Amino acid sequence: MSGSTGHPSAGRQTAGGQTTGQSTADLRSDTLTRPTDAMREAMAWAPVGDDVYGEDPTILALQSQVAELLGHEDALFTPSGSMANQLGVRLHVAPGQELIADDLAHVLRAEMGAAAVLSGISARSWHANAGLLDVDAAMALAVTDGGAYQVGTSCVVVENTHNFGGGTVQPLEAMRELHRRAHERGMAVHLDGARLWNAHVATGVPLADYAACADTVSVCLSKGLGAPVGSLLVGSRAHMEQARVWRKRFGGGMRQAGILAAAGQFALEHQLERLADDHERCQRVARAVAATRGDAVDPAAVHTNILVLHVAPAGWSASDFIAATGERGVLGYAMGPEHVRFVWHLDVDDAQTDHAAAVLTDLVSQQA
Amino acid sequence: MSGSTGHPSAGRQTAGGQTTGQSTADLRSDTLTRPTDAMREAMAWAPVGDDVYGEDPTILALQSQVAELLGHEDALFTPSGSMANQLGVRLHVAPGQELIADDLAHVLRAEMGAAAVLSGISARSWHANAGLLDVDAAMALAVTDGGAYQVGTSCVVVENTHNFGGGTVQPLEAMRELHRRAHERGMAVHLDGARLWNAHVATGVPLADYAACADTVSVCLSKGLGAPVGSLLVGSRAHMEQARVWRKRFGGGMRQAGILAAAGQFALEHQLERLADDHERCQRVARAVAATRGDAVDPAAVHTNILVLHVAPAGWSASDFIAATGERGVLGYAMGPEHVRFVWHLDVDDAQTDHAAAVLTDLVSQQA
Amino acid sequence: MSGSTGHPSAGRQTAGGQTTGQSTADLRSDTLTRPTDAMREAMAWAPVGDDVYGEDPTILALQSQVAELLGHEDALFTPSGSMANQLGVRLHVAPGQELIADDLAHVLRAEMGAAAVLSGISARSWHANAGLLDVDAAMALAVTDGGAYQVGTSCVVVENTHNFGGGTVQPLEAMRELHRRAHERGMAVHLDGARLWNAHVATGVPLADYAACADTVSVCLSKGLGAPVGSLLVGSRAHMEQARVWRKRFGGGMRQAGILAAAGQFALEHQLERLADDHERCQRVARAVAATRGDAVDPAAVHTNILVLHVAPAGWSASDFIAATGERGVLGYAMGPEHVRFVWHLDVDDAQTDHAAAVLTDLVSQQA
Amino acid sequence: MSGSTGHPSAGRQTAGGQTTGQSTADLRSDTLTRPTDAMREAMAWAPVGDDVYGEDPTILALQSQVAELLGHEDALFTPSGSMANQLGVRLHVAPGQELIADDLAHVLRAEMGAAAVLSGISARSWHANAGLLDVDAAMALAVTDGGAYQVGTSCVVVENTHNFGGGTVQPLEAMRELHRRAHERGMAVHLDGARLWNAHVATGVPLADYAACADTVSVCLSKGLGAPVGSLLVGSRAHMEQARVWRKRFGGGMRQAGILAAAGQFALEHQLERLADDHERCQRVARAVAATRGDAVDPAAVHTNILVLHVAPAGWSASDFIAATGERGVLGYAMGPEHVRFVWHLDVDDAQTDHAAAVLTDLVSQQA
Repeated sequence: MSGSTGHPSAGRQTAGGQTTGQSTADLRSDTLTRPTDAMREAMAWAPVGDDVYGEDPTILALQSQVAELLGHEDALFTPSGSMANQLGVRLHVAPGQELIADDLAHVLRAEMGAAAVLSGISARSWHANAGLLDVDAAMALAVTDGGAYQVGTSCVVVENTHNFGGGTVQPLEAMRELHRRAHERGMAVHLDGARLWNAHVATGVPLADYAACADTVSVCLSKGLGAPVGSLLVGSRAHMEQARVWRKRFGGGMRQAGILAAAGQFALEHQLERLADDHERCQRVARAVAATRGDAVDPAAVHTNILVLHVAPAGWSASDFIAATGERGVLGYAMGPEHVRFVWHLDVDDAQTDHAAAVLTDLVSQQA
Repeated sequence: MSGSTGHPSAGRQTAGGQTTGQSTADLRSDTLTRPTDAMREAMAWAPVGDDVYGEDPTILALQSQVAELLGHEDALFTPSGSMANQLGVRLHVAPGQELIADDLAHVLRAEMGAAAVLSGISARSWHANAGLLDVDAAMALAVTDGGAYQVGTSCVVVENTHNFGGGTVQPLEAMRELHRRAHERGMAVHLDGARLWNAHVATGVPLADYAACADTVSVCLSKGLGAPVGSLLVGSRAHMEQARVWRKRFGGGMRQAGILAAAGQFALEHQLERLADDHERCQRVARAVAATRGDAVDPAAVHTNILVLHVAPAGWSASDFIAATGERGVLGYAMGPEHVRFVWHLDVDDAQTDHAAAVLTDLVSQQA
Repeated sequence: MSGSTGHPSAGRQTAGGQTTGQSTADLRSDTLTRPTDAMREAMAWAPVGDDVYGEDPTILALQSQVAELLGHEDALFTPSGSMANQLGVRLHVAPGQELIADDLAHVLRAEMGAAAVLSGISARSWHANAGLLDVDAAMALAVTDGGAYQVGTSCVVVENTHNFGGGTVQPLEAMRELHRRAHERGMAVHLDGARLWNAHVATGVPLADYAACADTVSVCLSKGLGAPVGSLLVGSRAHMEQARVWRKRFGGGMRQAGILAAAGQFALEHQLERLADDHERCQRVARAVAATRGDAVDPAAVHTNILVLHVAPAGWSASDFIAATGERGVLGYAMGPEHVRFVWHLDVDDAQTDHAAAVLTDLVSQQA
Repeated sequence: MSGSTGHPSAGRQTAGGQTTGQSTADLRSDTLTRPTDAMREAMAWAPVGDDVYGEDPTILALQSQVAELLGHEDALFTPSGSMANQLGVRLHVAPGQELIADDLAHVLRAEMGAAAVLSGISARSWHANAGLLDVDAAMALAVTDGGAYQVGTSCVVVENTHNFGGGTVQPLEAMRELHRRAHERGMAVHLDGARLWNAHVATGVPLADYAACADTVSVCLSKGLGAPVGSLLVGSRAHMEQARVWRKRFGGGMRQAGILAAAGQFALEHQLERLADDHERCQRVARAVAATRGDAVDPAAVHTNILVLHVAPAGWSASDFIAATGERGVLGYAMGPEHVRFVWHLDVDDAQTDHAAAVLTDLVSQQA
């Protein structure tokens, strides 16, 4: 069973918490996944302690496991991916200095301006097609010789896979080149790896190979992996020590958080490789839609579990299209006025995928 | 059974996560409590959804329950008490304006300067004996007629019970007067009610009566109540809507957080009234120590579950005293150079209390 | 006499403050201008008052004059152009929201990250060739329908003339289109008009026509206009009232600042139209250099008083080139590794211009 | 002539800039002073350069002079006293750490919350009678052993003379003790010496003796000294280098600021010792009022040029009293509901002083 249940005696739980016999394909985001029964069991009996005191054994174990998996010295558990990213950039950029990222980056678009508000970090962006890393553009943007009176670029942020870019995977070679050239110029690299798991599963590149291209990496447990809450920041021991203090300042110090970490442990053991299923289902729908309308999506550009369709050529506005799919049991998300997004995850099965393929294909073939 | 277990087949779990037959009295803080088996069961099978989307049914239910309990319109779940307080003061104080609080207040002493860092909030403090609210001092400090070029006082923070004050309960009448006089002068009141449960149980004053004295109130699930993680901010619907946006900005947006909320529901049902046991045990030890050395503590000033001893008169430094109790299986906390703190909670039973009484009494009667 | 003197009995003052018979062409920046004797007289006898109290008559008169000149309701005097810009964007962008600007914009590159530090303002940038406004790129970057959990774009900043773009003039039509489209989407426009005087003199477009394309405009007195200190922000009366409070918070409240404002009044009367001389001299040198090496500069791209040369094709690094010109009495500024900048202003005459033309032409024709 | 004129041919200038034969005593603040003709001459012919480039000779000379006068390594010119203070505390306190000061301190009360907004600095305050330094209270408030999770006190601010305390002079011995005890505990001391000149003139204690009690000191040129604009921060060379960068970030980088510095040089030479006249006149009025109503003021508590009267015992509200004095040509300032303030300075002569004495004495002897 790929989905989530409430109490074993309860029926299937939907997004609203009601049980129902009907199966809506909720493709709004992979954050929607709910813990499976087995994951719930693992959480229930996790040994715990006070993690603000550094004494939660399950948190400590997960931090060690993820640090090792990514080939860094240490890790720190956080309540959200935003906080993990914000701690990462805080470590690298002093108030009044800047980070640079592509103009669709989650850290600039979807974290509520936190880098500026919490840390006084300035930012500029380069334009990236489908979020794909353009190392030359990044390096051309960076200012590392401007003297005391220009903003110095302290950190480059790269996102892999790239959410608003449509789940695209950054080529390892580009990440390596970015890392090398950034370090040559005295800049740090932070990798927003909320969906680094998907990149790893899609390409077979070891997680540690990607993570070796960055000074700090954030990874998220509550997206494709299917854990309910939590992210981790990984990096050097000294950086994690600083990050721990700032986590408290940001309000992210939790007590017996091992309950949540246990879900992460379970997910890493049981729900990592299955991301391939999400990718396959997403690709299947991309091909079906492209077969109907080639200008809506290029299946070669669909790398993982995120499908972005350009619905404007078919005469749709994004919001109308999402309303129309919703009426037929396929929930998605309008990205700006012309594009829509559908995301595959643990709680979406083959039947829902087939239904989504039928609905999307049908709608793009109509004029709105 | 008052304590917590890991998996049913495991032995007792200690703070470090090891199992052991020996029973250390870990009185460092009431944040150390671990979930009981029954609470773990309740958590395991909670229905959940994506709370960033406002769709977690258990979160929604807990928020409603706590809002109603405190007599306010709405509530918002947060990963920590610090974040709940910081959201509260953010609502009331614009950047460059100020909050005032007593000089031992948690919001100024133990939240890492977050009000200044996250929200640009200035602060001044009045001196309060044992944390007890001095309404005249607060009102004398406030500046509400200083014109455009003086910092205006926008919010008064009151803490009940008062942590660094030694778990002291604020008299309801003082809180009412503060609220009335603050409102007359256009200031909001935020109540840091992390341990408001203890005040309620100690005095019998309804929670809503205390909460009626404030515009926003924070309450914590992971201290005396014994839930692993989480606090709530309560207030008006409009305020909670704003707080939800700022919670995301602070990195406190969690996904299937209903797992944590279920522990809160369980705690409110099963572990609220038992705080009286903590108070009784703490008082018992206070009396035993006072009987040996009257200058170490006045039992009448011990209102709830926190025992602060003045160990300097007995010739001890706080750190030496804590080292000495630790060697004998009683863990506490040095508060500055002359005082030590011991906190009763769910995971401390009568036998541990008796042992603590014996150790503390013995040590204060020695010269260091 | 176009230059500046110290006391009438003193000889000519150079940048270092020494007097000398030799005439270095100090083309590092137009901020270097020193007040003429006549301007000094005007400053000396200006009526003054306490401007923090709003009682300096010369400040008030200058503010009115500049507001009227730019066709806005009111103006506010500031100690620097950075502060004028920072007050402008502060008015339009709430903490956690964003401004967008081109990636060479002064507000992002040369104000020390102040928007993030002082105001919690996030930023992204579009790429602009020679700083020239690309309205489509700006509009494509803006996010105005992202909902509560995406950063909203509140303000577009446009710079005219564009400093790091090489003193380029923004076409009035582009500014009008930007203003119209930004307003349609609920965004404000801030015009960084530190050198708007140069745009006006170069094109003949009235200052008010440019200023009509923005909600707030900053203008600087201490660049080409030749006053020693001061900028102004112009905008609506309500905005200026807010800006006055924030100016105090930023530490920009000055007392008898009328002394400085008098220089501004003098400059507007006597030193505005003469900017045409700077433009002509700069153009003359651009043509001379281009005649020698066409790949170093395109004279058609030199719009005003700033000459940017691309010295890399001639085999020079920027820093070596600047060292070489300096040895021959022509001071300039290295802009990144491949470009150098020379700026014409009040204290540079024809003889110095001819000398600069000879030196620059000679150096670009050598291989380094 | 002690006052200021506009152009030599003009009549006397009043606060509003009008000329008039009548002589209002404008005792609202010593910031109101206008430059004398001799000072205006000195300003007019000052050699200048671009101070952002560190090339203004008059600024450099004044910085050296003030650093030497105060016995510190270096100094930095700023547009306001607030900015000098804010740079000082920024040097000592990292974001999230705190400064402590008395609860009437200018840095907390009258700088618009800038320490929190610009630098993320938290604060607490001790209560001080008449602003007089209570070293034990300050030391008791400081937290320097709280570990990583409590706000650490990094800096103590002391103000001498104390503005809202009524121009009171801090005893040198208290300042020495504070400095010694603060350093023992790892804290820096910043001295807000906006009116340190008055303390020096009132007591004869050398400026350097006071300044030796602090790591950084701000002094103001535009209060009693009578210069139109400007303050300086003094401290170590390394600190001033950092402060220079932050001054730019705060928008305080000015160009040919030597014009303003020349007024400071003139004031130090010609208008420092005359502060004794202000003190004598202020004391004279204090005695006259006290002779009429002893509960309005204690002349022994009037140390320098600031007279604070308690008008409530005479039945007046502060605002009514100020309205009444204003109608009779004596301008003052309401400090809260019960107190009024009158400040002597360069532009107030004996005749105005006698008039003020008559008006104030008359009014306090009436019931309102």
